[in-house]
Amino acid sequence: MIIVMKPASSSKELEHVIKTIHKQGFKPHVSKGEETTIIGVIGDERKLDPVPFQLLPGVDRVIPVLKPFKLASRDFKRDDTVIKVNGIPIGGGHFTVIAGPCAVESLEQVMETAKKIKGAGAVILRGGAYKPRTSPYSFQGLGPAGLKILAEAKKRTGLAIITEVMSEMDLPLVAETSDILQIGARNMQNFALLDAAGKQKKPILLKRGLSSTIEEFLLSAEYILSRGNYQVILCERGIRTFEKSTRNTLDISAVPVIKKQSHLPVILDPSHAAGYQEYVSDLAYASAAVGADGIMIEVHPHPEKAFCDGQESLTPEQFKTMMIKIKSLVKVMGKRLNKVS
Amino acid sequence: MIIVMKPASSSKELEHVIKTIHKQGFKPHVSKGEETTIIGVIGDERKLDPVPFQLLPGVDRVIPVLKPFKLASRDFKRDDTVIKVNGIPIGGGHFTVIAGPCAVESLEQVMETAKKIKGAGAVILRGGAYKPRTSPYSFQGLGPAGLKILAEAKKRTGLAIITEVMSEMDLPLVAETSDILQIGARNMQNFALLDAAGKQKKPILLKRGLSSTIEEFLLSAEYILSRGNYQVILCERGIRTFEKSTRNTLDISAVPVIKKQSHLPVILDPSHAAGYQEYVSDLAYASAAVGADGIMIEVHPHPEKAFCDGQESLTPEQFKTMMIKIKSLVKVMGKRLNKVS
Amino acid sequence: MIIVMKPASSSKELEHVIKTIHKQGFKPHVSKGEETTIIGVIGDERKLDPVPFQLLPGVDRVIPVLKPFKLASRDFKRDDTVIKVNGIPIGGGHFTVIAGPCAVESLEQVMETAKKIKGAGAVILRGGAYKPRTSPYSFQGLGPAGLKILAEAKKRTGLAIITEVMSEMDLPLVAETSDILQIGARNMQNFALLDAAGKQKKPILLKRGLSSTIEEFLLSAEYILSRGNYQVILCERGIRTFEKSTRNTLDISAVPVIKKQSHLPVILDPSHAAGYQEYVSDLAYASAAVGADGIMIEVHPHPEKAFCDGQESLTPEQFKTMMIKIKSLVKVMGKRLNKVS
Amino acid sequence: MIIVMKPASSSKELEHVIKTIHKQGFKPHVSKGEETTIIGVIGDERKLDPVPFQLLPGVDRVIPVLKPFKLASRDFKRDDTVIKVNGIPIGGGHFTVIAGPCAVESLEQVMETAKKIKGAGAVILRGGAYKPRTSPYSFQGLGPAGLKILAEAKKRTGLAIITEVMSEMDLPLVAETSDILQIGARNMQNFALLDAAGKQKKPILLKRGLSSTIEEFLLSAEYILSRGNYQVILCERGIRTFEKSTRNTLDISAVPVIKKQSHLPVILDPSHAAGYQEYVSDLAYASAAVGADGIMIEVHPHPEKAFCDGQESLTPEQFKTMMIKIKSLVKVMGKRLNKVS
Repeated sequence: MIIVMKPASSSKELEHVIKTIHKQGFKPHVSKGEETTIIGVIGDERKLDPVPFQLLPGVDRVIPVLKPFKLASRDFKRDDTVIKVNGIPIGGGHFTVIAGPCAVESLEQVMETAKKIKGAGAVILRGGAYKPRTSPYSFQGLGPAGLKILAEAKKRTGLAIITEVMSEMDLPLVAETSDILQIGARNMQNFALLDAAGKQKKPILLKRGLSSTIEEFLLSAEYILSRGNYQVILCERGIRTFEKSTRNTLDISAVPVIKKQSHLPVILDPSHAAGYQEYVSDLAYASAAVGADGIMIEVHPHPEKAFCDGQESLTPEQFKTMMIKIKSLVKVMGKRLNKVS
Repeated sequence: MIIVMKPASSSKELEHVIKTIHKQGFKPHVSKGEETTIIGVIGDERKLDPVPFQLLPGVDRVIPVLKPFKLASRDFKRDDTVIKVNGIPIGGGHFTVIAGPCAVESLEQVMETAKKIKGAGAVILRGGAYKPRTSPYSFQGLGPAGLKILAEAKKRTGLAIITEVMSEMDLPLVAETSDILQIGARNMQNFALLDAAGKQKKPILLKRGLSSTIEEFLLSAEYILSRGNYQVILCERGIRTFEKSTRNTLDISAVPVIKKQSHLPVILDPSHAAGYQEYVSDLAYASAAVGADGIMIEVHPHPEKAFCDGQESLTPEQFKTMMIKIKSLVKVMGKRLNKVS
Repeated sequence: MIIVMKPASSSKELEHVIKTIHKQGFKPHVSKGEETTIIGVIGDERKLDPVPFQLLPGVDRVIPVLKPFKLASRDFKRDDTVIKVNGIPIGGGHFTVIAGPCAVESLEQVMETAKKIKGAGAVILRGGAYKPRTSPYSFQGLGPAGLKILAEAKKRTGLAIITEVMSEMDLPLVAETSDILQIGARNMQNFALLDAAGKQKKPILLKRGLSSTIEEFLLSAEYILSRGNYQVILCERGIRTFEKSTRNTLDISAVPVIKKQSHLPVILDPSHAAGYQEYVSDLAYASAAVGADGIMIEVHPHPEKAFCDGQESLTPEQFKTMMIKIKSLVKVMGKRLNKVS
Repeated sequence: MIIVMKPASSSKELEHVIKTIHKQGFKPHVSKGEETTIIGVIGDERKLDPVPFQLLPGVDRVIPVLKPFKLASRDFKRDDTVIKVNGIPIGGGHFTVIAGPCAVESLEQVMETAKKIKGAGAVILRGGAYKPRTSPYSFQGLGPAGLKILAEAKKRTGLAIITEVMSEMDLPLVAETSDILQIGARNMQNFALLDAAGKQKKPILLKRGLSSTIEEFLLSAEYILSRGNYQVILCERGIRTFEKSTRNTLDISAVPVIKKQSHLPVILDPSHAAGYQEYVSDLAYASAAVGADGIMIEVHPHPEKAFCDGQESLTPEQFKTMMIKIKSLVKVMGKRLNKVS
């Protein structure tokens, strides 16, 4: 931690700051400059609260030096984390394609989608049984009946399942069926849910909040890791900006930024970022090229009849066409595409 | 709902759109322009899903005409909603001052604050027993023990209590103590929590999400209203923008915008918006002048020792000084300041 | 300047950084912490380029300590700058009301507006002769003919004039007529124009760019000051955010933030921030209460016939009503309202 | 244009709106719905001003139907525009790599860079002679001397030249040397400069403003096109968001969005978006995969000694490594890489 004194601060104020540092069991290191004095505070910064110093007379600013997360950081763990789901390695040089409808609507709809995405190269089936919807009047998901449909689809196709959990009360039931539990963007800082997700054993796919910084995103992952669950997959799905020609703005730079700071796998969700079907494939190609560990794509056999997000869903045919280029791109980028045996 | 056809769409495509409108039980009204054709869809729009139309061949765009919320709208209820809390009217020409520490730390801290803010003119005491924190390593609140301290403070001072609830599991316990339940910015779209809040009877103070539009904010209020709880107070607390010299950017325009669209009371939280104590009073003055129904201010007897948000807390003395100008401003703006008898 | 070394950096790398600091004529001050080493660099930081250090092996981050602007800062000049325009003091406890149409359309339109705003309490007349328009097909202003109309209005009413200059080529002509030269938001970083504005003597009203930070805003003011023109009035007019229910988001916190950092006067433009006439007065009240040195309001005798920005213009009657409350608010806030004798 | 009436509007108000439409020479087309009435306005919308209608009593909203730009739109010109620069086709299936230093510093620096980027596959040399800098105290470019260096580099290497023009006064001189004139992000809405750029014959590379919407971006292109210069290359270089771990947020979705709406070539600038050298290559790969017509990359032989933007510059070696993957990606995406013969 670094404390910057105001140019006009007195030597008495400086002394008081130094005394306060000592009192908290840390060592001050003073550098007197021409205009300002700065103080390096030596000791384990994570145990230090910057606020008391910010409020001392004569102090201009307090600058933290260390990243506030630890278990999620590359400093803590050099090598990429690889998470095995149903035998499929996620992260560490493998590229994973997750696909399926926004919402589980019926066994027929899910089965038709599952077979076709499997044929085209997807290895994990997505589908929402519990749906977070902006309006109380929109379709809210089939709930437990939706989970049963997903379980049946898994049994028949062998595909691993990912579905969203919206509340810590639903978590045990969802965890019975789903191979990966998804925590949605709107719940990225639902700390009660993060806490519950950290205390059970299923891998978590954590979506970045609409306006969360990458640091906050990694701190939410840290919540889960610090409770004992080390299997966290990060998912960038578009952030909120002033630009409205896409539903969200895909922050594609998040991939190299997170890769530098953290060992956790990162996947991208071009469907929610784009919001329109016609842009999804191009964003998927960019995702493969930027170095992501996978993509999650909304596919629906009849988008015009979808209960939600139809406008951003690919048809199985469009998905199949997209996968051809994805395969070439993954190869050029030196990754291995996960396949279902 | 309005459907705009592409300039190059064919008459066959137009016919197909018209047929689809009829099939759903609505009436189409076609206007052929020089470059484009538009179709007005007649019927109760809230029952219509725009997506199937967006995906029909030849369709350029679908534009909804009605606001997606109903119970929260001024069209539904002309007059301001006034919510009585502990005998205090919130909304409808009354100005309400809520104050207190970020977190409940001890009975002494809460009592010292409560007495002083009451003396200066606050009528409701705030204080967090459950704290949503970005980092898992920060102080997370005293929980049930914090609620007991708040109950004791209420008994001794007669001040009404507001405290945050973070999970639908904690809701029954928090509702036993607190006169108003606060749902925080990070939980504005925690739909499980909104649902639970709507099914009980205590008034809700709903904070706007960091990057939620006003329409989404009102839709989250609609969740609570539509479940049967009509007592919702809206709270703007700063939105996330590129500007970092304040913690958030206070969207002060939200007050007249919401007042136009909705009958619900709106208060402002200058403390979380500013993030720095030195800007809080100026933003509070602006809040009183813009027409808000109240303000919520963080006050701590010893900000430098606060467990959280010390840097944005006023001391009781600063709060007292601020209240002098607030009283004059409220008078100029033609509102009545709520007082504790 | 502070240099933070990477946790895994070697002592050789540290030595190399230290040597480089010495080579540039500065003194290093090393603080070895438990996990990281930080180096304070002693000397006039404004002469130091942080980039060479950021790129040295072993360096994690370089943190500047000093603000990058000097002449615009409160450290350089403690007391508020007061700018005299036509005998009217702007800044330093005086509150100034500027009003007038978006664009100069005709002598009749300008004269009708000028008389009425003067009657209601405005002291400076605004009106655009050169109009920056997003579309090439929109009305672009009357140019020199518009300047003549403004000059005539000044002669007849005695009101000082402010009008926008869009190019350094037009500057000499505009400066002949206008008492204050306005540089618009879209030109805040048009450095050729800032340069020209700094080399002449008329006061400048500099509008904040749509997505400029306050630091960048003050650096653009510094351009003008550093060229020799010390008469700069800052104007916050709304920033671009995700929220679309207003044209821009008025960053009202900018007033106390700038007041802390700079001695220059700050005024607010509620009209461009709101974008809709119905919100303008409420934002003007907030502007007066937050401590601004003035407001700039669009007024048009017939908004529905305005060549531009009609939807955000007040009628003279609405302006008159607004001014009644503004006068009371200015008094409560302890400022003096400027008046035309 | 569509006019939406308020639910509570009277039939008199409706009649008045209809009369006003007729008066302006347009035809109204009324659709009475259950809750609201909408009016389609038939005629050439671009000649209609929506404001007078917005201000009529009873009107809720006015919704434009047509895009406000014409010459830049795909509706106006179906096929991709291909711009020939020095014999190199830009757009229409060709992929163009532009590279070079941020600023022209010396003939040696430019020549060393030029030779190496040419060897690695770049076909156009970039380098700033006039530099827009946030601080007045930063290096502002060599000006005319820098142009001479670029001319010399062109003569010796045969590479085409692109350099920035910051003011319409400098434009004739810059156009003598440079094959493409760059208009920077901060000048995207410097309309005097756009006007001058449109009235001369050199191709323009127009950078998107930091917080400009894609519609505003295309309207700025329309300024140039409508003045008679049809050779405009669009360049997305990152937008301003809340996320600060990169200098800007690369809005990679802008490529498919613009490709859908416009026939103009679109290139990406990963260097300014990233702001840090370590992320540039990954963003360049994403740019090639998303379907852009080219990339612009900052390369400096000694980034640690660069006069500006050193922290985001690749070394010639890093650039060479990057180009290997770029070539494979361009091939996979079905484009042809431009080469210097």
